Amino acid sequence: MPAGMRVGVLTGGGDCPGLNAVLRAVTRKGISVYEHGILGFRSGWQGPVEDLTTPLTLDRVEEILNRGGTILGSSRTNPYKIDDGIARLKETIAQHRVDALIAIGGEDTLGVAEQLTHDGVPVVGVPKTIDNDLDATDYTFGFDTAVHIATEAIDRLRTTAESHHRALVVEVMGRHAGWIALHSGLAGGANVILVPEQEFSVEKVVEWVEQRFERQYAPIIVVAEGAVPEGGMERLVTGEKDAFGHVRLGGVGTWLADEISKRTGKESRAVVLGHTQRGGTPTAYDRVLATRFGLHAIDAVTDGDFGKMVALRGTDIIRVPLSEATASLKTVPLERYAEAEVLFG
Amino acid sequence: MPAGMRVGVLTGGGDCPGLNAVLRAVTRKGISVYEHGILGFRSGWQGPVEDLTTPLTLDRVEEILNRGGTILGSSRTNPYKIDDGIARLKETIAQHRVDALIAIGGEDTLGVAEQLTHDGVPVVGVPKTIDNDLDATDYTFGFDTAVHIATEAIDRLRTTAESHHRALVVEVMGRHAGWIALHSGLAGGANVILVPEQEFSVEKVVEWVEQRFERQYAPIIVVAEGAVPEGGMERLVTGEKDAFGHVRLGGVGTWLADEISKRTGKESRAVVLGHTQRGGTPTAYDRVLATRFGLHAIDAVTDGDFGKMVALRGTDIIRVPLSEATASLKTVPLERYAEAEVLFG
Amino acid sequence: MPAGMRVGVLTGGGDCPGLNAVLRAVTRKGISVYEHGILGFRSGWQGPVEDLTTPLTLDRVEEILNRGGTILGSSRTNPYKIDDGIARLKETIAQHRVDALIAIGGEDTLGVAEQLTHDGVPVVGVPKTIDNDLDATDYTFGFDTAVHIATEAIDRLRTTAESHHRALVVEVMGRHAGWIALHSGLAGGANVILVPEQEFSVEKVVEWVEQRFERQYAPIIVVAEGAVPEGGMERLVTGEKDAFGHVRLGGVGTWLADEISKRTGKESRAVVLGHTQRGGTPTAYDRVLATRFGLHAIDAVTDGDFGKMVALRGTDIIRVPLSEATASLKTVPLERYAEAEVLFG
Amino acid sequence: MPAGMRVGVLTGGGDCPGLNAVLRAVTRKGISVYEHGILGFRSGWQGPVEDLTTPLTLDRVEEILNRGGTILGSSRTNPYKIDDGIARLKETIAQHRVDALIAIGGEDTLGVAEQLTHDGVPVVGVPKTIDNDLDATDYTFGFDTAVHIATEAIDRLRTTAESHHRALVVEVMGRHAGWIALHSGLAGGANVILVPEQEFSVEKVVEWVEQRFERQYAPIIVVAEGAVPEGGMERLVTGEKDAFGHVRLGGVGTWLADEISKRTGKESRAVVLGHTQRGGTPTAYDRVLATRFGLHAIDAVTDGDFGKMVALRGTDIIRVPLSEATASLKTVPLERYAEAEVLFG
Repeated sequence: MPAGMRVGVLTGGGDCPGLNAVLRAVTRKGISVYEHGILGFRSGWQGPVEDLTTPLTLDRVEEILNRGGTILGSSRTNPYKIDDGIARLKETIAQHRVDALIAIGGEDTLGVAEQLTHDGVPVVGVPKTIDNDLDATDYTFGFDTAVHIATEAIDRLRTTAESHHRALVVEVMGRHAGWIALHSGLAGGANVILVPEQEFSVEKVVEWVEQRFERQYAPIIVVAEGAVPEGGMERLVTGEKDAFGHVRLGGVGTWLADEISKRTGKESRAVVLGHTQRGGTPTAYDRVLATRFGLHAIDAVTDGDFGKMVALRGTDIIRVPLSEATASLKTVPLERYAEAEVLFG
Repeated sequence: MPAGMRVGVLTGGGDCPGLNAVLRAVTRKGISVYEHGILGFRSGWQGPVEDLTTPLTLDRVEEILNRGGTILGSSRTNPYKIDDGIARLKETIAQHRVDALIAIGGEDTLGVAEQLTHDGVPVVGVPKTIDNDLDATDYTFGFDTAVHIATEAIDRLRTTAESHHRALVVEVMGRHAGWIALHSGLAGGANVILVPEQEFSVEKVVEWVEQRFERQYAPIIVVAEGAVPEGGMERLVTGEKDAFGHVRLGGVGTWLADEISKRTGKESRAVVLGHTQRGGTPTAYDRVLATRFGLHAIDAVTDGDFGKMVALRGTDIIRVPLSEATASLKTVPLERYAEAEVLFG
Repeated sequence: MPAGMRVGVLTGGGDCPGLNAVLRAVTRKGISVYEHGILGFRSGWQGPVEDLTTPLTLDRVEEILNRGGTILGSSRTNPYKIDDGIARLKETIAQHRVDALIAIGGEDTLGVAEQLTHDGVPVVGVPKTIDNDLDATDYTFGFDTAVHIATEAIDRLRTTAESHHRALVVEVMGRHAGWIALHSGLAGGANVILVPEQEFSVEKVVEWVEQRFERQYAPIIVVAEGAVPEGGMERLVTGEKDAFGHVRLGGVGTWLADEISKRTGKESRAVVLGHTQRGGTPTAYDRVLATRFGLHAIDAVTDGDFGKMVALRGTDIIRVPLSEATASLKTVPLERYAEAEVLFG
Repeated sequence: MPAGMRVGVLTGGGDCPGLNAVLRAVTRKGISVYEHGILGFRSGWQGPVEDLTTPLTLDRVEEILNRGGTILGSSRTNPYKIDDGIARLKETIAQHRVDALIAIGGEDTLGVAEQLTHDGVPVVGVPKTIDNDLDATDYTFGFDTAVHIATEAIDRLRTTAESHHRALVVEVMGRHAGWIALHSGLAGGANVILVPEQEFSVEKVVEWVEQRFERQYAPIIVVAEGAVPEGGMERLVTGEKDAFGHVRLGGVGTWLADEISKRTGKESRAVVLGHTQRGGTPTAYDRVLATRFGLHAIDAVTDGDFGKMVALRGTDIIRVPLSEATASLKTVPLERYAEAEVLFG
């Protein structure tokens, strides 16, 4: 086990609660157990390309475990799309005598990590996606926090819906995968859950909504931002006036609230949760998962096991090839959606 | 002290955390101390007009103290705008032998309450407004909860803004008064706070934003939905494309994020908090205030002190004429805004 | 698939967030999909023995998903230890024409369930343990909530410890298994974590504590109530005076805080979290898991697959023999503890 | 208005959420508006005595607004009880050319501040007490957070009490004043609230408890740590065995749970909330109040208005003589307690 390596770390892509917990675990174990030096690269892949660095010491990673965001900053820079990007990246790495990289990010960041491995840069990956749409791991950190926040919002919105005998459509994150909608919808007791994996019938939604109103309760509809009605996108044109008489053209949530109003004659409103789902203090679940990912990533680096990423399988952390990170999107299987559907209405 | 009255209660207007706490306090003290009977009217003033009732017993008000919404439901019905509205209301009241009413609501609900007092219906009011814009009372329940929720959202959004070096505009409730913006902005450490009470200069906002970026931090701008730029409404026309390429025409938050992007060249996003601010479990502060309001309202009824509403003055609950509820809007004084302004940037 | 069965349900043992979510899922799917009738037995096994019942209808299970506790009540009654217990239980079941039972509970409750299966009563089990110490399932509902609450407490205590340069010992639940200590300790960034699975060396604890003080930070020690020092129980005798000069003889947490004070000369305090860890609103994670357990339990009943209990394996819900519920305690493996230990100090 | 002063700041006494918010406001307004230099003294009055300092810059007070504790550290050091304490304090101040001090603390800290004013050291005070027992101000920061945490705990404990048909005694902070017990008890719907201001009758408590059990609900009793039974302290001797058979001698909460068990024959448990009430993220209310206190304190310093402390009166921040801070304890008035008592049982 080679101690005393120089290990570079970076965080890429969108914000995600738990990034700092990974950085802390990598740094603490790296320094205390392996006597590595840990160098942070700032702003994702932009860091090694433009030589933006910040040393990660034991003191620097104090008090960051429960903080959202990333102390390294992030970006969507792809060094392969920049002139001389890879050359400059290799130069920076050589100059700082960095022996290996840990790249924490989603599909794009890990895609770069995989290519770099083929191009002779030793990298270990840590998967990160709020959306939980990575096939190679049971769960990723950040997802539990996003579901937690969306569920709290649904809990709050339910009392307003009930007080006003009103339908409420809650639009949550998820362009291609409906995991956040499915889990927050189940946890919040949603009366309809709509996911990108399955085109939805407005008629069927209206049926569930009316069934709910008939039972003297107010319906909550949770919809992933990427869900689409049968017949597709062109149906998604809508207008709603705000307090100032301006038309608000919205996404599927706003459109659906409008349709429900028109078809049921009942008041219906949309709430778009947006960025609040991806920031702030991570849940305990995400802190544990992110910490374990960090501990295992620095192990993999020390073992020289490059081209791999850490992943959760059951209750174990395993290593899988980086190529699996980008192989296929993990969408909600039809049987999982059907399992939830029996609770609609 | 006349015991054994029949007291009717109703909740009108928008949802507000703490309504159930008022109902519980009225019912428990009404029954246990005064041996009154308490009759709930459903759906605001619609209840006494259309004879929609539900008895409030000790068992019915168990387990509702910490729940948002109102177990009586609400509406914006105005009996004075309904044919025979007042006659039907009086008939319902007579039929159920109701001696007096407690009306819990905002400007509109209490406006009706005041008129009814002149028309011979004995009413005591309990003020309710998320927006804290009622001049007769230091605070109203629901406001602290709204500020708490907005502040939590700002806390979460800050880490995302920092990670992405991005400006975030958070649009909170407040069409005519900026109290929620002021308090959540102060609590969340906003770098700019914009309120309806004072037209804002986009140039000045951009200055604060750039000052913040120069110090290597990301700016958070909290804006009340009713804030307007100098030059007024016509400037508020904007367009932002969502994930599906649809134009989203928004309120002041979306417009401002757009302007900041254009003028600073930095990424900027808007988050509209919406209805999540007015539902769900009330804070401890609001539960205490709502409970005290309820206890004092049933006292006022028992004392025969009609045409009054309860109000908070310092740490005391006092009674003021119902007319004060609708006399003038309590807006943020310029000196309170100036006090906060020194923290901008 | 036999529809129209009469299914009895009961909850036994200690309180656990998520019980109501199971009841709701069983009832909704049982009624809506299978057209079963669902009968609740109150107070655990006491219900079927003493004929304490309450029907579970769609209306009864509204608004309970996010509430802690159990609307059926619970008890630790064992019908095998009551005269004529089993006979009376069978009589009750026959009288209500109950075709099968769903028993939700821990080791004891499910032990009875297994015996009953052998004695001709068809039962399906749902595992429940805050402590996560059931070998047959990856996780049980309630555990995530307990960890969440303990972690929040640690977050709060850390700022106090830092402000006062003081060591804080946090005693969490876990008599035989250290899962809550391990997960909340990792999530809260504890500087020492002590579990029942491994006797601890006070000398070693003091070493970590002093290491922490030397780095100018305050140490947080998370200790499971069942952890014991090397040399065993007899070392656990302690005394601490409260505000009134009374001696407070405590568990391992109080004892350890005392030892740390004596050996380091630094102030040290113990906080015993107690029952707050097992009540209240379940986390989103626990609501999803409990809901899925409920859905699969009513499936198993409908399939006539008795003597089984539902369990989580990876992301799937599977069925395992009830005997597995009581076969062996799932303790923290030494390698999982060692994984965390590198973060101590 | 003299700009460019050198202002020293310190935090003394027990931890309290909001201290950092005061430091941030003092520093930001001090530097940005008045061009003062702000010097932090560490560990309360120990700082100026032993010359422990840390400069407070704009960067240093970033990201501390929502953090519990105090970045300056605290202590209970009294310079008047240390040999040469005052001389050394004056020397430190002179050496750093500090023109004035802001002392943030409770009765003891502000008592020293007042004496120092008489001894020629210009000081402005900011009141701080979790217990809300300071007569000169309507509320102090930290109190709302403590009530919030205690209320959340009561909410959680209620479901456990109900599930097990058990009485739960929750012991909260408050040695001399019952404000936390009163407010958290009201907010949590406690069935009995006991405060230090009024000796309680165990017989009467048992009556309320039994009344509650008769109505088929579980009683929650909230008791301030300083509450005493009629007949006084000597009644407070109790023993309860923990998991290991050790006797746990406790405070009034444990004693009362024991008494309730003995007298009612029902299970009863005590939970002592302890330090969790005084740490962690402050509520939005406390952040606003603390921020306003800080802004007004630096104003007072700049105005040369020494020997004063800032205070909340209604919705205004005013200045009162420092002597008022220590003049008399603000206890719960009997009529406020009586107001709550009608909700018992």
